[in-house]
Amino acid sequence: MAATKSLPHGNAVVGQSGGPTVVINQSLAGVVETLRGQAGIVKILGCLHGVSGIVKDRYLELQDVPQDRLERVAQTPSSALGSSRDKPDAAYCQRIFESFNKQNVRYFFYIGGNDSSDTCRIVNDLAQQAGYELRCFHVPKTIDNDLLHNDHTPGYASAARFVAQAIMGDNLDNRALPGVKIDIVMGRHAGFLTAASVLARQHEGDGPHLIYVPEVAFSVDRFLADVDAAYKKHGRCLIAVSEGIHDESGKPIAAKLAEQSGLPVERDAHGNVSLCGSGVLGDFLSDLIKKKLSIKRVRADTFGYLQRSFAGVVSPTDAREARTAGRKAAKLALAGKHDGSVAIVRTSTDPYRVQFKRIELSDVAGKTRTLDPQHILGTSDIADSFRAYLQPLVGKLPVVESLS
Amino acid sequence: MAATKSLPHGNAVVGQSGGPTVVINQSLAGVVETLRGQAGIVKILGCLHGVSGIVKDRYLELQDVPQDRLERVAQTPSSALGSSRDKPDAAYCQRIFESFNKQNVRYFFYIGGNDSSDTCRIVNDLAQQAGYELRCFHVPKTIDNDLLHNDHTPGYASAARFVAQAIMGDNLDNRALPGVKIDIVMGRHAGFLTAASVLARQHEGDGPHLIYVPEVAFSVDRFLADVDAAYKKHGRCLIAVSEGIHDESGKPIAAKLAEQSGLPVERDAHGNVSLCGSGVLGDFLSDLIKKKLSIKRVRADTFGYLQRSFAGVVSPTDAREARTAGRKAAKLALAGKHDGSVAIVRTSTDPYRVQFKRIELSDVAGKTRTLDPQHILGTSDIADSFRAYLQPLVGKLPVVESLS
Repeated sequence: MAATKSLPHGNAVVGQSGGPTVVINQSLAGVVETLRGQAGIVKILGCLHGVSGIVKDRYLELQDVPQDRLERVAQTPSSALGSSRDKPDAAYCQRIFESFNKQNVRYFFYIGGNDSSDTCRIVNDLAQQAGYELRCFHVPKTIDNDLLHNDHTPGYASAARFVAQAIMGDNLDNRALPGVKIDIVMGRHAGFLTAASVLARQHEGDGPHLIYVPEVAFSVDRFLADVDAAYKKHGRCLIAVSEGIHDESGKPIAAKLAEQSGLPVERDAHGNVSLCGSGVLGDFLSDLIKKKLSIKRVRADTFGYLQRSFAGVVSPTDAREARTAGRKAAKLALAGKHDGSVAIVRTSTDPYRVQFKRIELSDVAGKTRTLDPQHILGTSDIADSFRAYLQPLVGKLPVVESLS
Repeated sequence: MAATKSLPHGNAVVGQSGGPTVVINQSLAGVVETLRGQAGIVKILGCLHGVSGIVKDRYLELQDVPQDRLERVAQTPSSALGSSRDKPDAAYCQRIFESFNKQNVRYFFYIGGNDSSDTCRIVNDLAQQAGYELRCFHVPKTIDNDLLHNDHTPGYASAARFVAQAIMGDNLDNRALPGVKIDIVMGRHAGFLTAASVLARQHEGDGPHLIYVPEVAFSVDRFLADVDAAYKKHGRCLIAVSEGIHDESGKPIAAKLAEQSGLPVERDAHGNVSLCGSGVLGDFLSDLIKKKLSIKRVRADTFGYLQRSFAGVVSPTDAREARTAGRKAAKLALAGKHDGSVAIVRTSTDPYRVQFKRIELSDVAGKTRTLDPQHILGTSDIADSFRAYLQPLVGKLPVVESLS
């Protein structure tokens, strides 16, 4: 879309969508503080629970929220406006326009991941078809780190920090009381979060000793051979496994297990199978090792929702960048851009530097980025190149010192 | 035992036992820094993996570890010397004396919980019966907070902080995407850690909306009625459940489920059933709600080993007190005391003040303290009196602010 100097007069709507993160409110604060006081924009309306709040006319006026309160909201985990997993079709979008029209909304900012950018794209396309004047921007957010054209996405670095701190501690726990320990990490199609476990390796022999990401088809036989070898070598074995691991046919192991056990397999409006909120995958792998390898002490933890919501574990870089992403989207709209998404592009790793640039909504909408094959070592490890990529995002980790 | 002015000349052994905590190395550092340089004590030997290291003559010399390194070890989660769940009998203790005799050990410090204090008591009794001169001290440590005669125990406050921060975030996640969320918290017989979830309640309507501790017999029917009522009232429901909940007969629900599913039920040398490292209890309760209450979005997370090992979530009060407990045990030995355990006694809550005093080994050995009934509200809630007790231990929690 070409830039235009004449900005529409009206109100702005900002919403949050998809899985929350601990820095998603930084992006909300970035949008609000940049828009308010700007000529032509009267109200800044937060839609409650994403698009589902728009079609129900559920808005919160944000233009007068004092800056110190907005700052505290920015530091609070999870979506302050509530979230939604609705996927609007044409009829749904018609109801969005009706609400926007009633509220004289001319600016729409939607903070979310690839499904949310797709929602944003559909709303934008239908607005144009309907001749409804609307500035439509997507603000990136996802702990999965799977948006195309982004070096990384707001929310990922803090979740990666959680995983790194968890596995650092668990490695020491597993060293104190040796056995096999399995940690199940979030990530449906992309292994970025599971790969973050490499940061826990601080000294020789540290775990995770094995890492399984969804980019590599999972084989039960190979897994057992890997565990057997690592346990013999280290006298213990710490394993990071993505919840999204799947067999050769692409079917998630967790979904297969759920089906076998007679549990219902849930899907959201975007067709995604719910893999989280259950210990089934960890328990399956744990039982497998006990039975086939006759190792007595085998435990599994599923990190679950803590990875995206844990209060107090935040990457400072992530918080700052999430804020900047929100501000950038608002600035693009104020600069006369019609639509787009914001992408984080890395220009240097040492020193760490990034730029925020506008990309097309269609560049990210509904698309999934996965781990670069160069970061994957064989079928059960992650390369040092990934650590170099990740370290500046996550920041300084806690002290770990040994006596031996 | 009466105090004596003449201290035995010889070496000291310090060990760590039972489940690790994030501050157990503070106690280790406290023992080492207090003993070293003292007349008559030549070597300070860390036994690797508790008593199991003693009988294998596996020691690490600690007297020359530089203070700055010891400081970094103190800040590192989990037992730096390794841990053990062995429970020594008379024959085992005979081997301990043989090793002590060979190493000329005259001081023994064992950092652990109620099972570990029992180990300490048995070693001490047998040493006396054998006429082996030994100073024998237990240093308290347990995230379960279940030692008698202690206001609280080192390790608990940091684990409580983890639970509070986890549930604070999860409450906001559950508010953003409403449904029923179950969080399974550690604690075999005592509900202290599960009760720490009350700190997550910062504003009206915040979860946890229901809290189940092992001090109250668990009824499936009452649970379903509770969840149904809370869900109707709040439009969502966040539930904290102790892994140790049991039926009217005292049988743990998790152990019953494991038996029913054909899984092996593990017990350690102290007869404790392993309830951790599996998602079976959370998954059972989650399925129950889906089937009986027809609520669609139901999730369960089991916090697992992260509660005792997570790197970087530490209560400053806990770290300081764990250090002091180690120092106190060493000081008691140097002051001529023969044996004992260290207890933390609170003298004031506002301002928060504690004292460290010597108690008999038999006061804590193998005994379990549970939640004071005054802190339990009905069958599914915790009283404000518990929050007042807990707040000064846990310290300042992260900021949580809402827009509405």
